[in-house]
Amino acid sequence: MTRIRLSSPSQIYQATRISSTYARGYSKMTSASAAQPNTLTAPEPTVVNRSHHEFDKTLFDSLLSRRFFFAPAFEIYGGVAGLYDYGPPGSSLQSNILDAWRKHFIIEEDMSELDTTIMTLHDVLKTSGHVDKFADWMVKDAKTGEIFRTDHLVEAVLEARLKGDREARGQAAVPEAADDDKKKKKKKVVKSTAVKLEDATVQEYESLLAQIDNFTGPQLGEIIKKHAIVNPETGNELTDPVEFNLMFESQIGPTGQIKGYLRPETAQGHFVNFGRLLDFNNGRVPFASAQIGKSFRNEISPKQGLLRVREFTMAEIEHYVDPKDKRHPRYAEAKDIVLNLLPKEVQEGGETTLTQMSIGDAVDKGIVDNETLGYFLGRIYLFLTKIGIDPKRLRCRQHMSNEMAHYASDCWDFEIQSSYGWIECVGCADRSAYDLTVHANKTKQKLVVKETLSEPNVYDKLEPVFEAKAFGMKFKKEARNIQGAITALDNDAMTKFKNALDAQGQAPVDVEGTEYIITSDLVKVEKKTVTEYVREFTPNVIEPSFGIGRILYSLLEHSYWARESDVNRGVLSLPAMVAPIKCLIVPLSNNESFNPLLSEITSKLRRAGVPSRVDASGASIGKRYARNDELGTPYGLTIDFASVSKRTLTVRERDTTDQLIGSVEDVVAVVADLCNDRLSWKQACEKLERYSGVQDTE
Amino acid sequence: MTRIRLSSPSQIYQATRISSTYARGYSKMTSASAAQPNTLTAPEPTVVNRSHHEFDKTLFDSLLSRRFFFAPAFEIYGGVAGLYDYGPPGSSLQSNILDAWRKHFIIEEDMSELDTTIMTLHDVLKTSGHVDKFADWMVKDAKTGEIFRTDHLVEAVLEARLKGDREARGQAAVPEAADDDKKKKKKKVVKSTAVKLEDATVQEYESLLAQIDNFTGPQLGEIIKKHAIVNPETGNELTDPVEFNLMFESQIGPTGQIKGYLRPETAQGHFVNFGRLLDFNNGRVPFASAQIGKSFRNEISPKQGLLRVREFTMAEIEHYVDPKDKRHPRYAEAKDIVLNLLPKEVQEGGETTLTQMSIGDAVDKGIVDNETLGYFLGRIYLFLTKIGIDPKRLRCRQHMSNEMAHYASDCWDFEIQSSYGWIECVGCADRSAYDLTVHANKTKQKLVVKETLSEPNVYDKLEPVFEAKAFGMKFKKEARNIQGAITALDNDAMTKFKNALDAQGQAPVDVEGTEYIITSDLVKVEKKTVTEYVREFTPNVIEPSFGIGRILYSLLEHSYWARESDVNRGVLSLPAMVAPIKCLIVPLSNNESFNPLLSEITSKLRRAGVPSRVDASGASIGKRYARNDELGTPYGLTIDFASVSKRTLTVRERDTTDQLIGSVEDVVAVVADLCNDRLSWKQACEKLERYSGVQDTE
Repeated sequence: MTRIRLSSPSQIYQATRISSTYARGYSKMTSASAAQPNTLTAPEPTVVNRSHHEFDKTLFDSLLSRRFFFAPAFEIYGGVAGLYDYGPPGSSLQSNILDAWRKHFIIEEDMSELDTTIMTLHDVLKTSGHVDKFADWMVKDAKTGEIFRTDHLVEAVLEARLKGDREARGQAAVPEAADDDKKKKKKKVVKSTAVKLEDATVQEYESLLAQIDNFTGPQLGEIIKKHAIVNPETGNELTDPVEFNLMFESQIGPTGQIKGYLRPETAQGHFVNFGRLLDFNNGRVPFASAQIGKSFRNEISPKQGLLRVREFTMAEIEHYVDPKDKRHPRYAEAKDIVLNLLPKEVQEGGETTLTQMSIGDAVDKGIVDNETLGYFLGRIYLFLTKIGIDPKRLRCRQHMSNEMAHYASDCWDFEIQSSYGWIECVGCADRSAYDLTVHANKTKQKLVVKETLSEPNVYDKLEPVFEAKAFGMKFKKEARNIQGAITALDNDAMTKFKNALDAQGQAPVDVEGTEYIITSDLVKVEKKTVTEYVREFTPNVIEPSFGIGRILYSLLEHSYWARESDVNRGVLSLPAMVAPIKCLIVPLSNNESFNPLLSEITSKLRRAGVPSRVDASGASIGKRYARNDELGTPYGLTIDFASVSKRTLTVRERDTTDQLIGSVEDVVAVVADLCNDRLSWKQACEKLERYSGVQDTE
Repeated sequence: MTRIRLSSPSQIYQATRISSTYARGYSKMTSASAAQPNTLTAPEPTVVNRSHHEFDKTLFDSLLSRRFFFAPAFEIYGGVAGLYDYGPPGSSLQSNILDAWRKHFIIEEDMSELDTTIMTLHDVLKTSGHVDKFADWMVKDAKTGEIFRTDHLVEAVLEARLKGDREARGQAAVPEAADDDKKKKKKKVVKSTAVKLEDATVQEYESLLAQIDNFTGPQLGEIIKKHAIVNPETGNELTDPVEFNLMFESQIGPTGQIKGYLRPETAQGHFVNFGRLLDFNNGRVPFASAQIGKSFRNEISPKQGLLRVREFTMAEIEHYVDPKDKRHPRYAEAKDIVLNLLPKEVQEGGETTLTQMSIGDAVDKGIVDNETLGYFLGRIYLFLTKIGIDPKRLRCRQHMSNEMAHYASDCWDFEIQSSYGWIECVGCADRSAYDLTVHANKTKQKLVVKETLSEPNVYDKLEPVFEAKAFGMKFKKEARNIQGAITALDNDAMTKFKNALDAQGQAPVDVEGTEYIITSDLVKVEKKTVTEYVREFTPNVIEPSFGIGRILYSLLEHSYWARESDVNRGVLSLPAMVAPIKCLIVPLSNNESFNPLLSEITSKLRRAGVPSRVDASGASIGKRYARNDELGTPYGLTIDFASVSKRTLTVRERDTTDQLIGSVEDVVAVVADLCNDRLSWKQACEKLERYSGVQDTE
């Protein structure tokens, strides 16, 4: 078995791979972006009142940095590419997303949660294939030693040459968005020079670029030689591509003999615990395990902020099903959900046109492989849109045949559109029985489900009968292993073995690479009738796998806008469910008479499950509100002198800046209902009076 | 500055160090254990009805393994010492503890949450002192290469010799508990032989054992030589002790030139972000940052299950205060809490007698250094007892002078008593300005608070005035560094520098290890009157640091008991707040007529915020309840035919096995109130009728 799921790292970590091939479809996607929202499923936004400025990445980045959503790790030490720290609003947002995830998946579906170690024994990742195959190809500048990821460099150079050719021919540039999308992926933007190419060369480059994700390292090396690709900065030649394993390696304990890796995914931690998980679930499938935790990839040259990082939070589900029955008991709840689908046939025809289709139709037409996979696609869609991802900027792309591991029956990625293009944020694959099988084979542990059959299964089977003593005399301590290998032969191999014994009086058997010749005096193969009362099977695994950092970043882009009145001040329209702070309390001034009411309101909100924050800084009310618009705080309560004398409060809604007034008790109750999704702002407006006493300006 | 906080790893990770010295006080502690509960603070348990069997560690361990609370990581691959995976109940328990922690500390006190990287740049941990000092001493068997932690081996061998001596003298053994407590700490239990020692030798061994934590590696090496300590198993000699750094090391990126470590604590991630955190908090102290996350220690030879592991979850708070004002605004809420204190003076006198004292008294008497530290001791106590730690098995031990880093002003450990003895589970230290100062010095970033003074501060100061041109001509590119070093001289050093210039016409200055001679034509030192309108200071840091795995394990021991009727079946009396599953729903049988009600109840409970689990297995009701007693599920709902026909439900309480009956609506409402701590079982018994129809037996 030479080809495994992990044939390239861009395939292994489905959840967060940036699909570079299909991101090229960006410009074509504008029509899809403008498509009708999915009326069946898109949650109706409570308030829509956003101005429609162009998305300004510089202002957006400045907001995220200024408000400490996240920042380069060890920034005061100069930082390291691909490592980021989340500050208070980023941490809260992340922890609210994870909390929503836990409720939506683990609690709602009674999944078995796990917390397995990050530090993983070499042997586990050797079996899973990561030690051998979880690598990218890198090349070095032959003189300076500068390191590049090979495919990214080749892509950048060829695209620059094509661009130069278009300039020389006086052709229009590729549309901005698509071009922009491509450039951001490269380690360096390679400058183009206006040089005309042969028509045949243009065609060759375009063909190479279309297949760039499919080349092996040696093939990339040949392309580099053939097309005289050098380091664009120095003009120096490049070394041959060599594989670089993307796992962080370390030693466990002081002996230096136990090698460990930081896990590149949480999945293997589920699989090695399958036996215990099955016990915990009373020995029956279907059930699911779930885990939230950090994983690590030692990227060659990470760029793109939170979208390609060396340490990231994942949330993974492994749902174990009977391979003969991939129905799902709650399928009916998902089948009417309409998704933007990009099936493999469409892509293989060179298109990226989306199809809007219900999950039920997609399963019925065989586009989505089975009900359970369809069910999870629906649940993932509901989760993403619930936390605030724009359903119009969300698509569900199927892996093409050459992208998918040979054993997988189907795989879909949820891609979210942002200024970086369409980014893979959730993967949902049917991994078949592959992982459990390889771990079972390696450890000789049975990782199977036993099902008591209502009617026994009767069939004929070839079975070896050994002359135990003679066998032992001949093969000594190897005897047991050889007998095991013969017993383990499948039906075809056993038939061949029997035929050879019958015909030649001897037959070869392979035991972990060594061939032994077995003579017919040592073993006979007999046909026996087997009556099975218990069916044993290795379950298949459906795996929804979430890259939390990518979802978080996309959500921030989707939530960001600016008011007409002040384009430099951003607003993050995060749903209350995930907003870092649900409610800001703003006392008019530092006057001490506000303090008792301040404590009362804070503690009332806390008891109602609404974490709040007090901003008692000296800044104007308007400035304080603007600051919290940037933090995505949906509601603001103002305490003024009337609050003290008449026990009234005003509440301000972030997106509309509307203000309502009512008694302390009523306003707190309304805010609690708003934050817990029991009330919309429109309904709140019917419960409380409109207020216009305090202006929302600086 | 050679001596730093981290002079030994047993000091650095305050939160989870097992205090081997004081654990010896175990036998003396029995009186303290039997002390009166703290009436002011101990939460009254709702139900107390436990039988008092001896704690059976074997049965307890079997329960934890069988119910998959946790298990060795990669168990099917043989596992690796010190790495554990949490299964479903362990994960839920942990996540509920962390949720309670987040509410109790982060939300309740509006702390700034962080999520910083585990992979940490070498330079950061070099500055903090971990690269040089975070190590244990190890020795090897000179022939087999077997590795021992030096202090543990010396301790084990000397104790075995003392035991042999007592046997030879016909003396009684050391009391079981204390002895047991000691043995479990060793890598191996060393067998004793009845050999009488000289009286002087006995005395010497006892003195060595009393100081075992304070010896350096070379000192331990001398003890090994002097007392002919060998590998007790092989009789082979031991190598000299060498330091083994406990951090897992790895490389960041493909160059091999950027060294990283897995963080041994989360604290440094807070400190390097101090500037941004201060901004986020409007530039003012006090404020606190908080972080929950994994940390790593590559222990030499971990034993003791969850109490000494190589990967663990921590929760750390760094509270930044003005060094001149360590009061706390909410101190009044904590000062009446009574703690079991073990102050340093008591320990230094060789005693481990506990003192029950209110925090207010301890601060007033100077036993606890300051109000903020006292406040956090109280908050920690409230948290631990709230989640179910037995207050009688909780003590607060102060670090002795020789345990504490030179810069720390005070440090207390919350130790929890379990079958392993008194184990350090939470540390609470005043780290002074040390960490911020070393990072600021190294990075040349100002990590200070600026306070606008109500009255300006006027004072005289010596300041250098440079002849810039001549200085530049003479020192070229070093000029700037040298001027910086001169400007940075403190008042005493500047006075000396000036005196030397005045007297000899020249003075030396040290710039990062290189001495330059500065002549008086290049610089003059003048006295200037400074008027400061802004006070700049480096805040002090109070650090409560929690080892979550240790707390979780201790909580499981404190919650465990067995009914008289069946000592082999355990009960875990976990508070509903942290119980992995709050409510079990048990349909009488698989009859389909139960299904609609089952869905209705499940969804009603979910809406009320009570995660539940259905056990529809074929086992008897009694067996199903017993299984869930082992999982610590506080409430069980039975659905029988009366439930369908009359819409009634019974609810069973885990600890008493009492059952109540009422309408579906009433019972769900009562269970929701019970789980959310709005109702005690006693109150529930007044709201619903007693039921005795279904027996709680198998």
